Amino acid sequence: MKFTIQRDYFITQLNDTLKAISPRTTLPILTGIKIDATDNKLLLTGSDSEVSIEITIPSEVNHEEIVTIEEKGSIVLPGRFFVDIIKKLPAAAVTIETNHQFQAKITSGQSEFNVSGLDPDQYPLLPQVSEEDAMTLPINVLKNIIRQTNFAVSTSETRPVLTGVNWLIKDGELSCTATDSHRLALRRLKLENSLDNINAIIPGKALSELNKIISDEDETIDIFFASNQVLFKVGHVNFISRLLEGNYPDTSRLFPDSYETSLALHNGDFFHAIDRASLLAREGGNNVIKLSADPQHVELSSTSPEIGTVKEGVATSAFEGQGLKISFNSKYMMDALKAIDNDEVSIEFFGTMRPFILKPKDDENVIQLILPIRTY
Amino acid sequence: MKFTIQRDYFITQLNDTLKAISPRTTLPILTGIKIDATDNKLLLTGSDSEVSIEITIPSEVNHEEIVTIEEKGSIVLPGRFFVDIIKKLPAAAVTIETNHQFQAKITSGQSEFNVSGLDPDQYPLLPQVSEEDAMTLPINVLKNIIRQTNFAVSTSETRPVLTGVNWLIKDGELSCTATDSHRLALRRLKLENSLDNINAIIPGKALSELNKIISDEDETIDIFFASNQVLFKVGHVNFISRLLEGNYPDTSRLFPDSYETSLALHNGDFFHAIDRASLLAREGGNNVIKLSADPQHVELSSTSPEIGTVKEGVATSAFEGQGLKISFNSKYMMDALKAIDNDEVSIEFFGTMRPFILKPKDDENVIQLILPIRTY
Repeated sequence: MKFTIQRDYFITQLNDTLKAISPRTTLPILTGIKIDATDNKLLLTGSDSEVSIEITIPSEVNHEEIVTIEEKGSIVLPGRFFVDIIKKLPAAAVTIETNHQFQAKITSGQSEFNVSGLDPDQYPLLPQVSEEDAMTLPINVLKNIIRQTNFAVSTSETRPVLTGVNWLIKDGELSCTATDSHRLALRRLKLENSLDNINAIIPGKALSELNKIISDEDETIDIFFASNQVLFKVGHVNFISRLLEGNYPDTSRLFPDSYETSLALHNGDFFHAIDRASLLAREGGNNVIKLSADPQHVELSSTSPEIGTVKEGVATSAFEGQGLKISFNSKYMMDALKAIDNDEVSIEFFGTMRPFILKPKDDENVIQLILPIRTY
Repeated sequence: MKFTIQRDYFITQLNDTLKAISPRTTLPILTGIKIDATDNKLLLTGSDSEVSIEITIPSEVNHEEIVTIEEKGSIVLPGRFFVDIIKKLPAAAVTIETNHQFQAKITSGQSEFNVSGLDPDQYPLLPQVSEEDAMTLPINVLKNIIRQTNFAVSTSETRPVLTGVNWLIKDGELSCTATDSHRLALRRLKLENSLDNINAIIPGKALSELNKIISDEDETIDIFFASNQVLFKVGHVNFISRLLEGNYPDTSRLFPDSYETSLALHNGDFFHAIDRASLLAREGGNNVIKLSADPQHVELSSTSPEIGTVKEGVATSAFEGQGLKISFNSKYMMDALKAIDNDEVSIEFFGTMRPFILKPKDDENVIQLILPIRTY
């Protein structure tokens, strides 16, 4: 294998490939990046066996020559170390040439590295996902879906399905649900001419990595579901994640019909007041904030016996039902408010001991549910 | 005590005060910031008993009102926690009022914190440094001195004097020396009408903190030496550090008169070549780079048996004496090159097993000395 490539372009693609690679892997070859040079393109592969990223580098991009392949072939090179070398090389182009002992000679300007690689035939085969039935989403919509749900997945392996986000497509609607059993995030989206009867659990970690790779430069992303894999395809990048096995709990019964108290307030003012109160809630060690609502305003308070107390006031812009006192975890509340893009947030309460829900005012497509803490 | 202060200005001064405070202190009150309100100014004090910072906040700055003091008094408030509160408050001004139980009520907009403080009489007395004989340096010169020497202090407490920088003033010349016994950094400066016969060892950590606080907005800094303290005075800030006790070793005999080999090369090219070679030197675990010099160029190489080899070439712009091979620690070399501002660096070698020195070409005011490693 021998090729010469524009270094800046190469670095960007290598950095994206690295995102699939974990330094802690049971299979040492997976700490490497696999490079395949064919007639007219280069293929980079990184994988931690849960998530795989395949990037195609074409010989030309926008009529500018990116890579010249002199000899076809494949090799696996030590991932992070190889990328560190490429980043620091002196010239605008870099040439990589391998021999039959899987040694790679990397040259650029007056600099020459000889790096030991591994046999590409030892690299595990990646799952193949049929690219037949695609669902297409605008990139910014996918980024919002991830931002509005992914934070709520469980970080505990006690119930593995809860470490993923449940993507359900049914009757022309996508609903994405994440919960760690203390709070829940739901995002709904009407779809046109899309897939139907999809019920998949995508690992939260995979969605975080995907979110880092996709950029607003690309306009849309194609998504293909297989029985135990999902493929996200955007530009020259294929992002493949395994799906979580098991049944996701039915969360629809968590949403009651009629509230006891409903109020609306300014998202930013409320968020910053919680943020301040959480300074004390955090020092108290339990993150508990008390909320007391009457028709004019909401009062927040928190106490840490050793350090002191805090009291915050936020005006309500709407109020229905009876006054109420309730306590909650400040972190869950701040996460939920960040997921609500609207300037005004509606909160519906169903009693002091029952979960309450937050949503953007006059919008049912984002719903955040939080379990209260018993203090009153 | 009661005062109202502009929040943005207060935050900047608090952040600087915090720099003297260590969360790991044997004296719990030193995790706090002491605030003294007098008739027309506020005094902030932070200390970890090695370094102390005193900041004066005058009632007006540039004819703009900063602080209004309604009632004099003092309190010690929990440092980092207090600053976090002030940073997050909603309004442009904040009012702080204390009672006789050392409780502080902090109000801003609709936000009210009540924070437990400590008795200021329990706060240790800071050392007093007589402000009689000052030495004045331009801020940018002091910053350069710190940058060019401080990295070479020892991080080991085996020989405590080596954790500081030796400031010697004699015959109108300041010389600052730092060494960890593997490499040495020396910066010389001619002084006019300054102090004389000063021999002080300033802790490296204190100089690092000082460097973070002084900004290029101020033009000069006054330095006062006492028998076991040094005071740096710039604008409204007093920075006091204890001096290290003991005798600093005489390092003058380390510099031989006549070299065996002398060469000059481009600082940046050489630095980047070392930086690349150090990728392998680091993986090899010992940071060793081999250098081989002949009249035309310098070749650098490094090997890591498991990973591979690297070879770098850098052209020399001047060469005297005989060819040579020598090995060194890549980190020491990169530190030294960073301290040499000139585009061209001169290196003088006195034999494969003797320390070599680097300096800016045609300049004797910055000298970096490095002990080689025996490999050839």
